[in-house]
Amino acid sequence: MKVQQIADYEQNDVDLEGASRVKMRMLIGPADQADVFHMRHFEVAPGGHTPHHAHNYEHEILVLKGQGLAVSPTGDHRLKARDVIWVPPNEIHQFRNTGSEPLEIVCLIPAPRKAGP
Amino acid sequence: MKVQQIADYEQNDVDLEGASRVKMRMLIGPADQADVFHMRHFEVAPGGHTPHHAHNYEHEILVLKGQGLAVSPTGDHRLKARDVIWVPPNEIHQFRNTGSEPLEIVCLIPAPRKAGP
Repeated sequence: MKVQQIADYEQNDVDLEGASRVKMRMLIGPADQADVFHMRHFEVAPGGHTPHHAHNYEHEILVLKGQGLAVSPTGDHRLKARDVIWVPPNEIHQFRNTGSEPLEIVCLIPAPRKAGP
Repeated sequence: MKVQQIADYEQNDVDLEGASRVKMRMLIGPADQADVFHMRHFEVAPGGHTPHHAHNYEHEILVLKGQGLAVSPTGDHRLKARDVIWVPPNEIHQFRNTGSEPLEIVCLIPAPRKAGP
C-alpha cells in the first residue's frame, strides 16, 4: 500500500496544444504498476483551461476545489467542489477556471493500451 | 457529459461480511456504460470499518474527509483529507474510521470482467 498527500507529488506544467495555465501530478500510474487505469491531479490557474478536444477514451473526474465551467456538446455545466464528471469516449470537452482561486480536479483515464506482440 | 454532486447520488448500506457502518454511492459505473473502471464513494461512520480482506484487483483511493487508519501488511497509515492510496491487487487491506466525523473516500476499481464467449 502507498499513502501520500496530493501536495507531496511532483507537479509539472502541462505542455499540450490548447492547454493554458494547467499543471499536473501523476498520483497513481505506471510507476505503481497500475495497468488498468491511472489517477492524475490537475490544477488550472484562474483564467486557464484544458484543451477543447476529444479522444477515444473516457474521463472520470472529481472536482476538489474552485469554480469552473465544463464545456460539452450537450450543454455547459458550472463546476464546484464534489461534482462528479463522466466524459464518455470520443466526446469533445474542456474545463475552464472561471473563478479567482485554482480549480483542482482529479481525473482518471484508462491506462494506455500496450502494443500487441 | 454527466455532472452531478456526490450528495445527489443514492446512498446504500454496504452489506458485506466484515463491513461495519459503511455506506456506498456508485458515482460512475455500469449505468454510464463505464466499462474500464468504476468510481464509488464510501462513507464510514465513526467506529466503522471496511472488511479486512484481499481480492485480485487494485484500489485507487482519494480521502475526501475525516480521519482514519489504513491497515496494511507493510504497516498501518493514518489517513486525512487529500491522501491518495494505492492498494495493489491481492494485498490485504482495511479502512477504519478513527475520528468523530464520517470518513469519506472515493475508491475506484476495474470494471468486473465480462464473461467470455
